[in-house]
Amino acid sequence: MSDLLIKNARPIGGELADIRIENGRIAAIGSSLAAEGVPVEDAGGRIAIPGLVDAHTHLDKSLLGYPWYKNEVGPRLIDKIDNERKVKRDYGLDAHVQSMRQSLQSVGYGTTLIRTHVDIDTDQGLIALEGVMETRRQLTRVVEIEIVAFPQSGLIRRPGTAELIDRSMAMGADLVGGLDPCGMDRDPKGHLDTIFAIAEKHGKGIDIHLHEGGELGAFSMDMTFERIRAHGMQGKVAVSHAFCLGAPDWNMTQGLIDTCTELDVPILTTAPPSREVPSLKRLRAAGVRFGAGVDGFRDTWGPYGNGDMLERAMLLGMKNNLRRDDELALALDVCTTGGAVAMDRTRHALEVGGRGDIVLVEGETLGEAIVTHAPRKLVVTAGNIVARDGKSLRERP
Amino acid sequence: MSDLLIKNARPIGGELADIRIENGRIAAIGSSLAAEGVPVEDAGGRIAIPGLVDAHTHLDKSLLGYPWYKNEVGPRLIDKIDNERKVKRDYGLDAHVQSMRQSLQSVGYGTTLIRTHVDIDTDQGLIALEGVMETRRQLTRVVEIEIVAFPQSGLIRRPGTAELIDRSMAMGADLVGGLDPCGMDRDPKGHLDTIFAIAEKHGKGIDIHLHEGGELGAFSMDMTFERIRAHGMQGKVAVSHAFCLGAPDWNMTQGLIDTCTELDVPILTTAPPSREVPSLKRLRAAGVRFGAGVDGFRDTWGPYGNGDMLERAMLLGMKNNLRRDDELALALDVCTTGGAVAMDRTRHALEVGGRGDIVLVEGETLGEAIVTHAPRKLVVTAGNIVARDGKSLRERP
Ligand SMILES: [Zn+2]
Ligand SMILES: [Zn+2]
Repeated sequence: MSDLLIKNARPIGGELADIRIENGRIAAIGSSLAAEGVPVEDAGGRIAIPGLVDAHTHLDKSLLGYPWYKNEVGPRLIDKIDNERKVKRDYGLDAHVQSMRQSLQSVGYGTTLIRTHVDIDTDQGLIALEGVMETRRQLTRVVEIEIVAFPQSGLIRRPGTAELIDRSMAMGADLVGGLDPCGMDRDPKGHLDTIFAIAEKHGKGIDIHLHEGGELGAFSMDMTFERIRAHGMQGKVAVSHAFCLGAPDWNMTQGLIDTCTELDVPILTTAPPSREVPSLKRLRAAGVRFGAGVDGFRDTWGPYGNGDMLERAMLLGMKNNLRRDDELALALDVCTTGGAVAMDRTRHALEVGGRGDIVLVEGETLGEAIVTHAPRKLVVTAGNIVARDGKSLRERP
Repeated sequence: MSDLLIKNARPIGGELADIRIENGRIAAIGSSLAAEGVPVEDAGGRIAIPGLVDAHTHLDKSLLGYPWYKNEVGPRLIDKIDNERKVKRDYGLDAHVQSMRQSLQSVGYGTTLIRTHVDIDTDQGLIALEGVMETRRQLTRVVEIEIVAFPQSGLIRRPGTAELIDRSMAMGADLVGGLDPCGMDRDPKGHLDTIFAIAEKHGKGIDIHLHEGGELGAFSMDMTFERIRAHGMQGKVAVSHAFCLGAPDWNMTQGLIDTCTELDVPILTTAPPSREVPSLKRLRAAGVRFGAGVDGFRDTWGPYGNGDMLERAMLLGMKNNLRRDDELALALDVCTTGGAVAMDRTRHALEVGGRGDIVLVEGETLGEAIVTHAPRKLVVTAGNIVARDGKSLRERP
């Protein structure tokens, strides 16, 4: 929670202004702000944006720092899940080291807030959670990390997992995770009843991975909605991916979207080019809280990505066929303030009183900054300088 | 057409080898090749791939070198087309200068073969064609450029355009272009009869932009197939985009794909994340010639892209949900040899007798090279070194 004066910045691509941070919050935005007793950075006319928000990732499973992983995995979801557990054992993957590597790479790209899903399963128990929690402790002043206890290998199909999720919540995980109640556990009632019970017991929220498409995904969302009502958990249950919201059937999807609005269900997307995805403009128009994430990278799932949420804003724009500069600004909002709002952070914005998370980006305009996503000049978390010229100041292990 | 010895390269990510180019063609691939009297480059163990092939772009309309273009264009296709003609006039855009800029940027990224669609319309006449032809002349030894005379503003709806296309072919354009016979000209019979007549008169091929989706696109493809048969133009008519081949109706799309195989209709994609697109694996399995392109960039149509066909291989992979390393290799093949084959270049491959177009890329594996698309170490066109470290040797105007 530090003080800092950033001179000659262009907030969100607008006119030149200084930005003063006091005690980690934005205290003033204006011209020729006083610099006494405060460290000063000259933005040199660069655009300032709020800290980027990676609202859906997997910090514990990146293979960053290892040689290139040659992917020869089979086509089914279960092939990928089983393969991943095997690779973790074979590599002796250390979730603390890997989450440090990925977090600090993301910080270099300007990410100051992360929601990560951490694998909890009966093979490895809580060791990944402990590793990511240690990373969170070490990076307290660098990047805010929120942890979802995630039953990647199934909940009902692997007895003992529910108890591990329960213990994760007692240890300090922030949300209960879920995964494809139909497709993964083949028991949507059992899966959803279990995660809602754990969440209620600990007074925590939920974030469910829902890859199920079309009618199947709609069914799982409906069952989720029923339980939000029954448990009074409005505003506490997010759905990640939600590919079914991108299905062509307008009536079906509008019913789901309207219920997301009614029950305040945030939607988190990674905008994969190969899938139907929730439409950015449609969800914003309906007032649904909407964030985005990179969904991990350099792991056994797939080769793409690098942690850059400014590149993700571009991919989100491409996926949603956004071409105008005002549309690109929307995509960036989803990757900054929008994601933070979806994570209940209401003051993550470049405004007086907002959290002092600021990124200086390259480009004449916001559009150019997004499309070219050149190395970030400066990254500030709650007034602390955490990265320069694309590299986090703290060395990657 | 030069000689060159590249030592210590890994062709397509394989074992270390030397590559000798004589008279612009690959004369030998092997270990410890003799270096007498030939310039030598040490690849330092880097991966060598064939020259990248941009099989669908627009060299005449990039705004490269201008300040960022603030896009405020309306949502309809015709808004974008009308806006573009206006911007060209307002900017006094010089198609020669712009095509030099874009070509040389692409060369820096390793592109050695380009098919470009050049706008022909009754506003600007043949001036863009002349400009791009001048670029082609100047860059003969740097990058091969094939020109499509493209009725971007319509053919039937703008009387006089057909005559300009006809004159373009006489001047030296390589192919006749077409555009959405239903959606653009509202006269599919008139549009297609006109372009087939011009192509037949000049003994040239055709490349049609077909954005029309679903049943409408299928109808336009069917009308195209009828004319290929009637004119005996098997193997001479390509379709760009062909979004209708990505429609969900399997029977409809398989019928179209089978006819593409039967009539040897190459399909060229740009893999836009926002649209249904032809499936890479499905078209390859059917034996359809299949290439890819960047479709222009930094123009009035949209902000994305930079000319990098290695990044396009990544986008093609993401769009087709390719995750395995052997699948990524397929995507790269489409962006190199596949595109060349679609353009009737049968010896554009890293093999003895193949054209001496070689790019040295960074990465332990082919997968890493594609996903990270770091600056290219060296680009060679027919044995001539044309770019180093991501920059073309010839200066951009
Ligand atoms: Zn995920
Ligand atoms: Zn095009």
